[in-house]
Amino acid sequence: MILRQLYDRETSTYTYLVADEESRNALLLDPVLERMPCYRRLLQELNLKLHCALDSHIHADHVTALGTLRAEYGCETLVNEHALMDCASHKLADGEQIHLGKLVFTSVYTPGHTDDSICIHVNDREQDYLFTGDTLFIRGTGRTDFQNGDPAQLYDSLQCLLNRYPDDTWVYPAHDYKGWTKSTLGEERRFNPRLQVADKAAFIELMNSLDLPNPKFMDVAVPANRSCGKSEPT
Amino acid sequence: MILRQLYDRETSTYTYLVADEESRNALLLDPVLERMPCYRRLLQELNLKLHCALDSHIHADHVTALGTLRAEYGCETLVNEHALMDCASHKLADGEQIHLGKLVFTSVYTPGHTDDSICIHVNDREQDYLFTGDTLFIRGTGRTDFQNGDPAQLYDSLQCLLNRYPDDTWVYPAHDYKGWTKSTLGEERRFNPRLQVADKAAFIELMNSLDLPNPKFMDVAVPANRSCGKSEPT
Repeated sequence: MILRQLYDRETSTYTYLVADEESRNALLLDPVLERMPCYRRLLQELNLKLHCALDSHIHADHVTALGTLRAEYGCETLVNEHALMDCASHKLADGEQIHLGKLVFTSVYTPGHTDDSICIHVNDREQDYLFTGDTLFIRGTGRTDFQNGDPAQLYDSLQCLLNRYPDDTWVYPAHDYKGWTKSTLGEERRFNPRLQVADKAAFIELMNSLDLPNPKFMDVAVPANRSCGKSEPT
Repeated sequence: MILRQLYDRETSTYTYLVADEESRNALLLDPVLERMPCYRRLLQELNLKLHCALDSHIHADHVTALGTLRAEYGCETLVNEHALMDCASHKLADGEQIHLGKLVFTSVYTPGHTDDSICIHVNDREQDYLFTGDTLFIRGTGRTDFQNGDPAQLYDSLQCLLNRYPDDTWVYPAHDYKGWTKSTLGEERRFNPRLQVADKAAFIELMNSLDLPNPKFMDVAVPANRSCGKSEPT
């Protein structure tokens, strides 16, 4: 499996380019519109075919590259079935799979940060990888105070991940604000402050007490992302 | 082998925590003083013993954490033998090895960006890793216009790396300004613009024509780093 973690410094977003080495079919996870030159270059240089681009949810902090990627590469554009994004070429149900050569990616519905949040799981050479979107960050989680976020649902989603996958699963989040690049599920189970709460009620109380300002680009990003990041029809 | 890439957003510096899984002995490569809280936390949470901290050269853009790490952990502090850093506990010759459990790290003297620049090589499970400092960036190289930098030497150092290690060697640089996190030597051989020049003369001409401004923190960072990042004796 080819895996490249790419960073958008402006919004502290991680985008992932994942591809099957043999078929050269690739998936772009949470691509950022402003980073298109980087994606074009890397796809060409690594000789990859973009099979699909996927948003782990409707982002509020950056504009997605889904529409532009589909226009340029004719790739599929994928979001969760609850996402208010009519321009996506396909909407993923919980548990639905994406095949790239021998790699099997599974969409895991994990509402809580938003009501359309998913994580993507893949296993390669007996190693589990979990692309956790804004559901699980390294030593943190996504917030739950807009876009139909719900702390009770996020608690259940996090427990689902912890119960389903082994502790040595690599955790690759969609953002990091502290300078970390990856973690494991076991590390997060033991050291993520938001997973050290006593129970669901304590988690809900913690999340409801955060009182965070809205993301800087939210008023632009959310409507733009519902149109796949493009103002013209796609 | 445990490997974590850590990012300092302010100076676009990558620091690497590398450790032997069995002995738990760890090495910190190019640590940044301001990121100490992150290193303390990760060393504790991953249950690692800091055996040594190493600077790939005297940095001009950030202050090193070497002195603070030595004071707190009693670790060795390592630089190249040409580095003007009298407080380092040991100075590495070209080809000198560092042992962490079964892992063998080799210091490769690669002058050019500065006259004290080194790369660090390690092989784990038949995979080569090269921590390239400011000698080789992803699709770029370090500059050669201060601290006894020399484009002719940098050309020779880069050719040495390309000749010595296989194309699938992972390249982990000390900086990235474009959102990339890792590459391979083969990719850099084929796609790094500075490695596409016709010959050494063309490389020298290219490097001498860059006309870059000095790093923002250079006047503070270089003297501070010659004292291991500490104003008091270490």
